[in-house]
Amino acid sequence: MSDPNVARLIVSCPDQHGIIAALSACLAGVGANIINSAQHSTDPEGGSFFLRMEFHLADLPHRRALVESRLALVADAFGMEWRLTLASTRKRVALFASRHDHCLLDLLWRWRRDELAMDMVCVVSNHPDLESEVHPFGVAYHHVPSTPETKVVAEKNALELLAGKLDLVVLARYMQVLSGDFLRRIEAPVINIHHSFLPAFAGPNPYARAHERGVKLIGATAHYATADLDDGPIIEQDVARVSHRHTPQELALIGRDIERVVLARAVRWHLDDRVLLAGSRTVVF
Amino acid sequence: MSDPNVARLIVSCPDQHGIIAALSACLAGVGANIINSAQHSTDPEGGSFFLRMEFHLADLPHRRALVESRLALVADAFGMEWRLTLASTRKRVALFASRHDHCLLDLLWRWRRDELAMDMVCVVSNHPDLESEVHPFGVAYHHVPSTPETKVVAEKNALELLAGKLDLVVLARYMQVLSGDFLRRIEAPVINIHHSFLPAFAGPNPYARAHERGVKLIGATAHYATADLDDGPIIEQDVARVSHRHTPQELALIGRDIERVVLARAVRWHLDDRVLLAGSRTVVF
Amino acid sequence: MSDPNVARLIVSCPDQHGIIAALSACLAGVGANIINSAQHSTDPEGGSFFLRMEFHLADLPHRRALVESRLALVADAFGMEWRLTLASTRKRVALFASRHDHCLLDLLWRWRRDELAMDMVCVVSNHPDLESEVHPFGVAYHHVPSTPETKVVAEKNALELLAGKLDLVVLARYMQVLSGDFLRRIEAPVINIHHSFLPAFAGPNPYARAHERGVKLIGATAHYATADLDDGPIIEQDVARVSHRHTPQELALIGRDIERVVLARAVRWHLDDRVLLAGSRTVVF
Amino acid sequence: MSDPNVARLIVSCPDQHGIIAALSACLAGVGANIINSAQHSTDPEGGSFFLRMEFHLADLPHRRALVESRLALVADAFGMEWRLTLASTRKRVALFASRHDHCLLDLLWRWRRDELAMDMVCVVSNHPDLESEVHPFGVAYHHVPSTPETKVVAEKNALELLAGKLDLVVLARYMQVLSGDFLRRIEAPVINIHHSFLPAFAGPNPYARAHERGVKLIGATAHYATADLDDGPIIEQDVARVSHRHTPQELALIGRDIERVVLARAVRWHLDDRVLLAGSRTVVF
Repeated sequence: MSDPNVARLIVSCPDQHGIIAALSACLAGVGANIINSAQHSTDPEGGSFFLRMEFHLADLPHRRALVESRLALVADAFGMEWRLTLASTRKRVALFASRHDHCLLDLLWRWRRDELAMDMVCVVSNHPDLESEVHPFGVAYHHVPSTPETKVVAEKNALELLAGKLDLVVLARYMQVLSGDFLRRIEAPVINIHHSFLPAFAGPNPYARAHERGVKLIGATAHYATADLDDGPIIEQDVARVSHRHTPQELALIGRDIERVVLARAVRWHLDDRVLLAGSRTVVF
Repeated sequence: MSDPNVARLIVSCPDQHGIIAALSACLAGVGANIINSAQHSTDPEGGSFFLRMEFHLADLPHRRALVESRLALVADAFGMEWRLTLASTRKRVALFASRHDHCLLDLLWRWRRDELAMDMVCVVSNHPDLESEVHPFGVAYHHVPSTPETKVVAEKNALELLAGKLDLVVLARYMQVLSGDFLRRIEAPVINIHHSFLPAFAGPNPYARAHERGVKLIGATAHYATADLDDGPIIEQDVARVSHRHTPQELALIGRDIERVVLARAVRWHLDDRVLLAGSRTVVF
Repeated sequence: MSDPNVARLIVSCPDQHGIIAALSACLAGVGANIINSAQHSTDPEGGSFFLRMEFHLADLPHRRALVESRLALVADAFGMEWRLTLASTRKRVALFASRHDHCLLDLLWRWRRDELAMDMVCVVSNHPDLESEVHPFGVAYHHVPSTPETKVVAEKNALELLAGKLDLVVLARYMQVLSGDFLRRIEAPVINIHHSFLPAFAGPNPYARAHERGVKLIGATAHYATADLDDGPIIEQDVARVSHRHTPQELALIGRDIERVVLARAVRWHLDDRVLLAGSRTVVF
Repeated sequence: MSDPNVARLIVSCPDQHGIIAALSACLAGVGANIINSAQHSTDPEGGSFFLRMEFHLADLPHRRALVESRLALVADAFGMEWRLTLASTRKRVALFASRHDHCLLDLLWRWRRDELAMDMVCVVSNHPDLESEVHPFGVAYHHVPSTPETKVVAEKNALELLAGKLDLVVLARYMQVLSGDFLRRIEAPVINIHHSFLPAFAGPNPYARAHERGVKLIGATAHYATADLDDGPIIEQDVARVSHRHTPQELALIGRDIERVVLARAVRWHLDDRVLLAGSRTVVF
């Protein structure tokens, strides 16, 4: 992934004839070789088109401006929203956590093993509890207390700390609701993990409610956070089988294993520019 | 399963000391051998206790009354709700369907293969469409049309046809809501299959809504029908993975495979007396 | 799927620069619109390249020869193996079965529901047992007895019946081993369902051996049949959870539900030209 | 789990009439209350019987000898192998690892979170690499190098370190084969995690071989180690879906998530005395 000559082209636009031909001709014209290409159309007639192309181009860092100027011509002709990212440019990520350590440590562990190609900016928590566990990873830990009374100030502090310095926020079981204002001003996508199979059991205490309803599977959902709580575009979900034998506490224990895997998948796909927004849904290439 | 000397004892009562000892002593006292036993307690202190014991007793049909009189003494002492069923007594079942054939034919096919130990009373449908497909199975097909205007009469007709003649109703994608009055007067449990992972997408058109919400898994839920639509005790659920590539129609197609398997499991477990009601939930042994 | 103006281009060749650009330019040149495109490279340097492109072209049936002549030029330049299929041309399929009905009836049922876009040539069986169940589907049933002594004659009879008349053979739990000679002369791919998670328990009686080994999951495998028994390229696999409680007979019963779903998926993907051979493996788009 | 008045009775014997009645009468006779009971018979006629009963008895630590003497009478009469364990007595566990950290750290993390009720004796590794990662958990790390030449001495050293001091050894991706002699002399069960869905791909390099065979699912297997490599009784297995897109390295990455969850489940069930040996298989209650 660290090949400096590999880039990813991400495109969305109204579906129409000739998109793939135009883009691949453009890339061939500058000497690029398409390694990988995936596209999706919601409807060939009047729908939306989404594309992710991974290509190799010798001396890419020096020729990026050229490639982008050529792509801009195609993009204009087709009305594309698009971006080009270098596979070698790691996204800068901040992890938000509260008291649960399982998602946070799992992401740190995967990052240390090079499973997740990101630069770790810091960990932010509204509790001091996990500092000693984060410390061995060599990542800064910011304790930003937040209560209903201090939330406005807490978000302001977090914004000062982070705004402009990161490309992604991951809420690794952060048990505070971020305001719509924060989400706008942080200027980076925010991925959250919800400990239920959304839209079932949106809101607090999903395991207790899953137990009460007597479901036979529990799940977890990774989604982009929006101002509408638990309603953002879903990136990934998974489930595990449970039974009448499990208490709400055991559901939570089983759920932890799903949460950390689902969140890690969502983060990895995002870092690889595989997740495209399609209104209130996602396209995952 | 057709061994005439095998019975199942189903018990629920407040949890308390000595239940298993008392029941197993009672069965040992009449010479029965416990083949299988499962129990569950929601809380050893003040909770509810559930038990299913399968036992073998030589000459059981002639000694059933004796066994029941002995069990009644234990049951009285512990405040048990209980019943004894013979494994060889097949439950009488009516299948309700509309236009979708997948759940209906799957159940008929399993019944013909002896996967489901039941006596088929008849198929009831509010449409004539599936009669020719049911015919080869040698099962009576009753077309009972039902519209909002005629629903009261339709239910009355169905009750006249069925009341007192069956032990179970299975709604195999029956697209009409049965009234609370019908559910009371049919005097048999009713199992429904809902084409979503309840409580997500309760109500109509779950696949369209799942598509709109962009979930990454779709599911099906078999539950006992109650007057509260889609809110009855859940017996079984399962899911399948989907993606942005699937249209609502493809979700429905994938969902059919889950629906028929989930419904078949729920019916089999019910026929084997494995499903006990625990308030709004089930215990599945 | 029955749009007469939709075609699928299937390509495999050594990976090299410019393949996608050349193909999409070629298709754009005749006015075709790419609906869908998937490709895979085993290695951008010196590996193999596989592609499936679905495109729409007005008046395709009359312009197919033109399109093919243009594609042939590209194919020559890149050393491609390729073929063009019309989405509206249904493949002609023969189903082989023995005494188990679950895979056979499931495929017939899906075919009748239009889940599988194929023309049913006939059912061939070495037993007469399932004729009455096939009859209602309106499909010819050929009883071709086969014993170790008569196998050569039986295969010869089947070849006379089928050779040149079909595009696919599906072994729906056909319990005879087809000879390498038959597989060559039938001149159509043959899909088999094996009732284990290959390569575990290759060969006969997989459920008995799975029970003996005490595995906690059982599975099924759909693969292309080759002269090396149970060793052909795998198309699809799935599993179900089992436990010490299950007898070999119950494993077989649980397995039936996996077998029919796995086989149906493999057949559907093959009919949609989604399965490409890559040596002893498959690429499934 | 730390209730000092809760015990588990584990029994295996030839199946015969009256076992449950005798045991529950015995426990009732000393005033114990059965919280939980599970049993399994391989065949009511001439098969083997397995049972796990969890019970509560006031003042159990002082009355254990009495309970055991009463149970011994029943056990003698039925020819039972049996043992009684206190839920509050933590098993002493040593973890063996090599260079892979994922299973090791996952077990340590679960132990620290009280997901695994065990006392950690030490970590043993044939490499020094993971010492700094184990250190923060406060667990002793013994580097015991082992090469083909020094294996006999290495095992001798490990035995001197451990024999008599532990109740369980967990091979958390320990890449050395333990000799039959070691397995006998360590006098504690040994759980291993194999990175394939056994019996498929037994032996070394399973992910490379899974890739070569083109399987569509990969798996992991936790089993008791025996002198027959990869052939011991299976405790737990699970799988994940893969495709032609995944390289052997990506299979290994996906596999790590299965390995750690499967191993953790197996260890937890063993610690809870839920896993009974039944010849070359296991009964998992």
